[in-house]
Amino acid sequence: MASNGKSRFLQVYNRLKSELLQDPAFDFTDDSQHWIERMLDYNVPGGKLNRGLSVIDSYKVLKEGKELGEHEEFLACALGWCIEWLQAYFLVLDDIMDGSHTRRGQPCWFRVPQVGMIAANDGILLRNHIPRILRLHFRDKPYYADLLDLFNEVEFQTASGQMLDLITTHEGAKDLSKYKMPVYKRIVQYKTAYYSFYLPVACALIASGENLDNFGDVKNILVGMGTYFQVQDDYLDCFGDPEVIGKIGTDIEDFKCSWLIVQALQYAEENQTQILNENYGKSDPSCVAKVKAIYNELQLQKVFAEYERSSYEQLIASIEAQPSKAVQEVLKSFLGKIYRRQK
Amino acid sequence: MASNGKSRFLQVYNRLKSELLQDPAFDFTDDSQHWIERMLDYNVPGGKLNRGLSVIDSYKVLKEGKELGEHEEFLACALGWCIEWLQAYFLVLDDIMDGSHTRRGQPCWFRVPQVGMIAANDGILLRNHIPRILRLHFRDKPYYADLLDLFNEVEFQTASGQMLDLITTHEGAKDLSKYKMPVYKRIVQYKTAYYSFYLPVACALIASGENLDNFGDVKNILVGMGTYFQVQDDYLDCFGDPEVIGKIGTDIEDFKCSWLIVQALQYAEENQTQILNENYGKSDPSCVAKVKAIYNELQLQKVFAEYERSSYEQLIASIEAQPSKAVQEVLKSFLGKIYRRQK
Repeated sequence: MASNGKSRFLQVYNRLKSELLQDPAFDFTDDSQHWIERMLDYNVPGGKLNRGLSVIDSYKVLKEGKELGEHEEFLACALGWCIEWLQAYFLVLDDIMDGSHTRRGQPCWFRVPQVGMIAANDGILLRNHIPRILRLHFRDKPYYADLLDLFNEVEFQTASGQMLDLITTHEGAKDLSKYKMPVYKRIVQYKTAYYSFYLPVACALIASGENLDNFGDVKNILVGMGTYFQVQDDYLDCFGDPEVIGKIGTDIEDFKCSWLIVQALQYAEENQTQILNENYGKSDPSCVAKVKAIYNELQLQKVFAEYERSSYEQLIASIEAQPSKAVQEVLKSFLGKIYRRQK
Repeated sequence: MASNGKSRFLQVYNRLKSELLQDPAFDFTDDSQHWIERMLDYNVPGGKLNRGLSVIDSYKVLKEGKELGEHEEFLACALGWCIEWLQAYFLVLDDIMDGSHTRRGQPCWFRVPQVGMIAANDGILLRNHIPRILRLHFRDKPYYADLLDLFNEVEFQTASGQMLDLITTHEGAKDLSKYKMPVYKRIVQYKTAYYSFYLPVACALIASGENLDNFGDVKNILVGMGTYFQVQDDYLDCFGDPEVIGKIGTDIEDFKCSWLIVQALQYAEENQTQILNENYGKSDPSCVAKVKAIYNELQLQKVFAEYERSSYEQLIASIEAQPSKAVQEVLKSFLGKIYRRQK
């Protein structure tokens, strides 16, 4: 989307925020209005906004070039912002659970003085804002219940994926034997792919009057793309250029269930497995170097390139099997944005 | 409700739990099923179940004695359990935010070894289970969207009340000057009354085919009763019999914005206010004793008795102004259960 599109999207944020601050369901004090406004400005609009913007992009493609009315564009933006609100809610709570320090180049919300554990309730409020926005602007649409169902289902899937991640990778002593490909795929699919890839397109489809029951394949393709996206993320964490991706990866130090360690364990000989077991999840740079040396011995850069090539091929084939050209265009646009990305 | 009713209610819990453990929207592993089952059993059914059971009681009264079919009773129980799930979600997260130690006679969920911060995500899952239950059993009802709206609105109000409580009573240095009656009432109304008193009756009304827009007075009466209930709670924390209420109150030590301290500050002379400022919120028993001495000097037991009498009178008058005898009966039954309660 052009920067004009982004600035219009941000204008909608301001409108939604001011509506939420005057929600008649709560009798706001000045203090509580100020708190919410500061909390929203800190947590909602500061990301890349890819998920939100892609609702509007997808919706425009589905309308096949027909000019969008002003109110129609506003509604598409409102749905986009609902996804950004959902993302903000997950991030605020994830940062508390992970004890993280920074997010989007600033301290995590719960690290801000005078916020602390109030952040948990702020996360809840972010989540509660979504149905407030939907009710205010979509209550009279024939697809209102479908929208609520969609957000509820995707949130449930994300929270379930988060649970799986927490009980698999945080539980008990560090144990690499649990890091296997089906486990990895299941976590990524539920924790990331549904809300990041499927949800924006599903919102656009619903707003176009479509019944999601007819788009099971589209869901699978988008979940596949979300998985591919996360594999890239894991790859770039180790092999990307820190100057380009804007951070220094710490997945090895953090004992993350990354695609790289899962692949490495799959291909490693016994002595290599032992080195991985002894060195993975330690912050000592010499341990990290030993893990990276195994990754290189196992030629994981080549394995990744092959994975990337075959994922792309499969995704393109599935997309081209779609009956609707507009749907194909939406899916190809998503894939085009992430294929061979360096950041 | 008779103990037979309670055991039938608990049977419905088991059915809902097993449905949630097989939700097709998530691909459960054995580990994640076990985690959820243990988490639900630990947090959902262990309370007094008053809120949940009152949905069924209210629904039966609204049906004016007509026999309930088996499926109809199941649906009323399912709505009751949704409120118990909501309560469990609030308690799990509140305990984390407050750093509490025990709940319902056992360690708070986040204090259980190997749970810790995963409890925050478990709270989120409890909340997510509500729309899963509603979708499975109410998707085809004409009032499905109204039910979702109701739960969304009441959750929003509760989280907003919690925010108000957190920013008013936890923010900065201990300062009693903020503890005034309008602040107290607003916190209680939003944080407790909507979900504990209004929500059960609203569920029963919706399931009976009523439009909640026609029951604004009923909402106000129930919110009034919820406020009265919380005032009793605050009173019993200090003046109740620990043998009867089952715990030793610590509101004074905890610097709680209790009805008693708000009343005391309202009536206190300058020297009494000073004593309150110096001693409220300290765990030293001699400080607590000084606060209680002021409560006695100001005759707060008498002030409470008068508050209780006049609240009851006003509530009964509002109830008797209701056009429907069945609605009157529902409201009087609620009031009868709490009037002059000793625990």
